[in-house]
Amino acid sequence: MENIFINPGKEQWAELTKRPAFDYAALEAIVQPVLQDVKETGDEAVKKYAAKFDKVQLQDLFVTAAEMEEAIAMVNEELKLAIQLSENNIRLFHESQKDAVQKITTTNGVVCWRKSVAIQNVGLYIPGGTAPLFSTILMLGIPAQIAGCSNIVMCTPSNAAGKVNPVILYTAQLLGIKNIFKIGGVQAIASMAYGTQTIPAVNKIFGPGNQYVTAAKQLVNREGIAIDMPAGPSELAVFADNSSIAAFVAADLLSQAEHGTDSQVLLVATSTQIIKEVNSQIDIQLKELPRKEIAAAALKHSRFIVFENEKTAFDFLNDYAPEHLIIASENAIELCEQVINAGSVFLGNYSPESAGDYASGTNHTLPTNGFAKAYSAVSVDSFVKKITFQQLSETGIQNIGPSIELMATAEGLQAHKNAVTLRIKKS
Amino acid sequence: MENIFINPGKEQWAELTKRPAFDYAALEAIVQPVLQDVKETGDEAVKKYAAKFDKVQLQDLFVTAAEMEEAIAMVNEELKLAIQLSENNIRLFHESQKDAVQKITTTNGVVCWRKSVAIQNVGLYIPGGTAPLFSTILMLGIPAQIAGCSNIVMCTPSNAAGKVNPVILYTAQLLGIKNIFKIGGVQAIASMAYGTQTIPAVNKIFGPGNQYVTAAKQLVNREGIAIDMPAGPSELAVFADNSSIAAFVAADLLSQAEHGTDSQVLLVATSTQIIKEVNSQIDIQLKELPRKEIAAAALKHSRFIVFENEKTAFDFLNDYAPEHLIIASENAIELCEQVINAGSVFLGNYSPESAGDYASGTNHTLPTNGFAKAYSAVSVDSFVKKITFQQLSETGIQNIGPSIELMATAEGLQAHKNAVTLRIKKS
Repeated sequence: MENIFINPGKEQWAELTKRPAFDYAALEAIVQPVLQDVKETGDEAVKKYAAKFDKVQLQDLFVTAAEMEEAIAMVNEELKLAIQLSENNIRLFHESQKDAVQKITTTNGVVCWRKSVAIQNVGLYIPGGTAPLFSTILMLGIPAQIAGCSNIVMCTPSNAAGKVNPVILYTAQLLGIKNIFKIGGVQAIASMAYGTQTIPAVNKIFGPGNQYVTAAKQLVNREGIAIDMPAGPSELAVFADNSSIAAFVAADLLSQAEHGTDSQVLLVATSTQIIKEVNSQIDIQLKELPRKEIAAAALKHSRFIVFENEKTAFDFLNDYAPEHLIIASENAIELCEQVINAGSVFLGNYSPESAGDYASGTNHTLPTNGFAKAYSAVSVDSFVKKITFQQLSETGIQNIGPSIELMATAEGLQAHKNAVTLRIKKS
Repeated sequence: MENIFINPGKEQWAELTKRPAFDYAALEAIVQPVLQDVKETGDEAVKKYAAKFDKVQLQDLFVTAAEMEEAIAMVNEELKLAIQLSENNIRLFHESQKDAVQKITTTNGVVCWRKSVAIQNVGLYIPGGTAPLFSTILMLGIPAQIAGCSNIVMCTPSNAAGKVNPVILYTAQLLGIKNIFKIGGVQAIASMAYGTQTIPAVNKIFGPGNQYVTAAKQLVNREGIAIDMPAGPSELAVFADNSSIAAFVAADLLSQAEHGTDSQVLLVATSTQIIKEVNSQIDIQLKELPRKEIAAAALKHSRFIVFENEKTAFDFLNDYAPEHLIIASENAIELCEQVINAGSVFLGNYSPESAGDYASGTNHTLPTNGFAKAYSAVSVDSFVKKITFQQLSETGIQNIGPSIELMATAEGLQAHKNAVTLRIKKS
C-alpha cells in the first residue's frame, strides 16, 4: 500500500476526496443516436442493438409465463429462503417510510395537507453482466409496491441464448412483477423512456448500470423523464480506530473493491497501527478472492488516511460524502452524530456493507460521487409525489385574503389580487 | 374564446395536454459560455455580464447592512404585517414536514433508521424583473431554515442603479438570510454553482427564473449540482361544474394568465353552461387588468374542455398533470380523491390559486410541464438528505449473515460473502 497519508492539511483534501472523472460528452455522443433510433423505430431498433451489443437474436422481448416457471424451478430452495428473509427486512424498513396525511390548520378556516400518491408508471433497470444483481430488484421493487405504483416495468438483459438469469426472474415473481423485458443497456433505457410497440413508457426510471446506461438515463432525464439519481462508481469509506477489528475492515474494503476496477475505497483512521494491520489483512485475504484482479486494480487508487483526532476525521469524511460509510468502532453510536454527508452508514464492528447490500433492510441504491451532499438513498419517497392540498372556507379567505391582496399588489400581480377580492366581497 | 372542445376522444388528449416546446439546445449554446466564464474568472465575469445583460455597473456584489436598513425602512407596515402572516402560515405547514427518527428492528439484532440531515449549502435564486417575487423567498427560505441548512446564499438582480427591491430585502431579513448578492440571470446560477471570490459555492440551487436561468440550472445540474426541479412556464387547470362560481373561475384563470404570455390555462368542465358564463366573466374582468396584454396573449393558447362525466374529466386532468389544480366545486373534497397527478390542489369555491401563491401555507414552487407525474412541490424534504443507518449486533449478524452469504455467492461477489463469514466465525 503506497497511498498512505498522515494528517493531510485541508489544502490537500480536494485532491484526496476527488472521484475519477468521466467524459460524459463523449459517452453522450455514442448514446444519443441509439436513443433516437429506439424513439423512432421502437422494437426494431431494440432488437438491432441487442444483436449488435449483446450478441443475441431476440424474437420476443417479453418474458413469458413459461420462461418464468422454468426459471423458478432452477433456483435452489436455500437461496429462495435467503431472498425471502431479505425481502422481509427490506419491506419492514420501507413500510416505515410511508407518510400519513396530516391536516394542518394554518389560520382559522385554512387547512393544508400533503398526500403521497404513487408515481403511476415506473421502470426498473436490472443489469446482467458479470454479476446478476437480483438484490436490486428487491431494493427497487419493494418500495415501488409499497408506494402503490400501478405499472412496474422491468428491463434486464438476456444472455446470448436469449435467457434471463433465473434468480432475477425468481426475485421478480416473488414481488409480483409481471412486465419483464429481456432488454439491456441503452436500448432498455430508451424503451422505458419513450415506449415501443411492446414496452410501455414510464414516468421515472430507476436502477444501476454501466457508463452507457448512466449516460442514457441522464439524457432522457433532460427530456423530462425522471430518474432515481445521478450515478457514479460505487464507493466505501471506513472509519477505524483502536477498537476496530482489522480483519473485518480489510474484508469490507475488499468487498467494495471487487465491484469494479473503478470502485473507490477510503480508509480514514485515528491510529496508524490499525492501518498497518488492515494492510496485512488485505494481503492475506486478497489472494483468496475469485475477483482478485478487479479488487487489486481498485485498491491501486484507494487511499489510507490518518488523522490526529476524530473531529478532523469526520470533517474529512463529510467533505468526501461517501456512498457507504462504515464506522468500525465500538464508539460508533456517538461518532455517527458527526455524520453530515453519507448515503448509508454502518455502525460498529458487526455491520458490514454487505448487510446493507442485501438484507439489513436499508436500500442499497445510494448517492455516489459526492452526491450524498444533496441526494438521498432510494426510498418509498422516490416512488411517490407528495401532492399538496388546501381548502379555504369563507372565514378562511376573510382571514388571509387581505394579506394576499397586499402581497399580490406589491408583486404587481393585480389579477392575483382580484381572485381574492371577488371572494372576500361575496363571502 | 375559440379553443372550446366538447367531449374530445382520447386520441386528441396528447394534443390537448401538450405544453409549449422550448429549444433548450439553442438556449444552452448561449448559456454555456457564460457559465464557463464565471467558472474561470469569477467576480470579474459576474460584473461583466451584469453590465451587459442588466445594464448595471456593480461595485460590490454583497448587499450591505446599511442597504438592508435603508430598504426595511421603505416598506410600509401594512405590507410587513401581510408578509408576517404569510410567513407564519408557511412555517406552520412546513414544520409538519419534519421527520422524526424511527428505529426499526427488521430482525432480532438488526436495527435500521433514517435521519434527515440538512443540505449544508443551499442557494436561492429570486428573480427581479417585471414582478419582484419576494413571496418566493418565504417559499424557499422557510423550509431551508426548518431543515437546518447552515449556509443560505441568496442571489437576486439589482435595478440599473444597483439597488435591490426593498420588499425582497425586507423579506430576506425577516428570515435572517444574510448572504445576499445583487446578481441575476445565468451569472447568478454560475456563481452559486462554482463559487467566486465573493460568492460561496452551494450543493443545491433553488428558485424560478426565465428560460436562460432554467437552462443554466439544467446545465450545472449535469455537473453534479443538485437543483430543486426541472422548470417550465407556470400553468393552471380548473375543474368546474354547475356548483362553480363563474366570476371566481374567470378571476383564477386570469391570475394565471397574467404571469406571462407563455402561461398555460385550462378549464375542464362537466357543464357547457359554466364555460359560457366563465367566458363572459373573462371578457368583463380582463379589461380592468394592468397586465391585460400579457393575460390576453396567454389566453390565446388556453383550452376550454367539456366532458360528459367527472371520471373522464379527472382522467384527462391526471393526463395533463397540472402545476396548479383548482377543483371549483362544492363537491371538491370527494372529487379530490381522483387526483393522481398535480402539484398543488385548491379545493372548493373559496380556495383561489393566489392563496397558495402567497399565504395558505403550502409551497408555491411546484412541478410544471407535466413533471407533476413524477416530481413534488418544494418542501422541507428538498433541503435535507435522508441518511440511512444500520447497526447489527453479534446476534444480528448470526441471524441474517447466512442469507447474505448465499445471496452474495449467487451474485458472484465472494468478498461480500467473506465480510460476513469472518464476522459469523468471530461472533
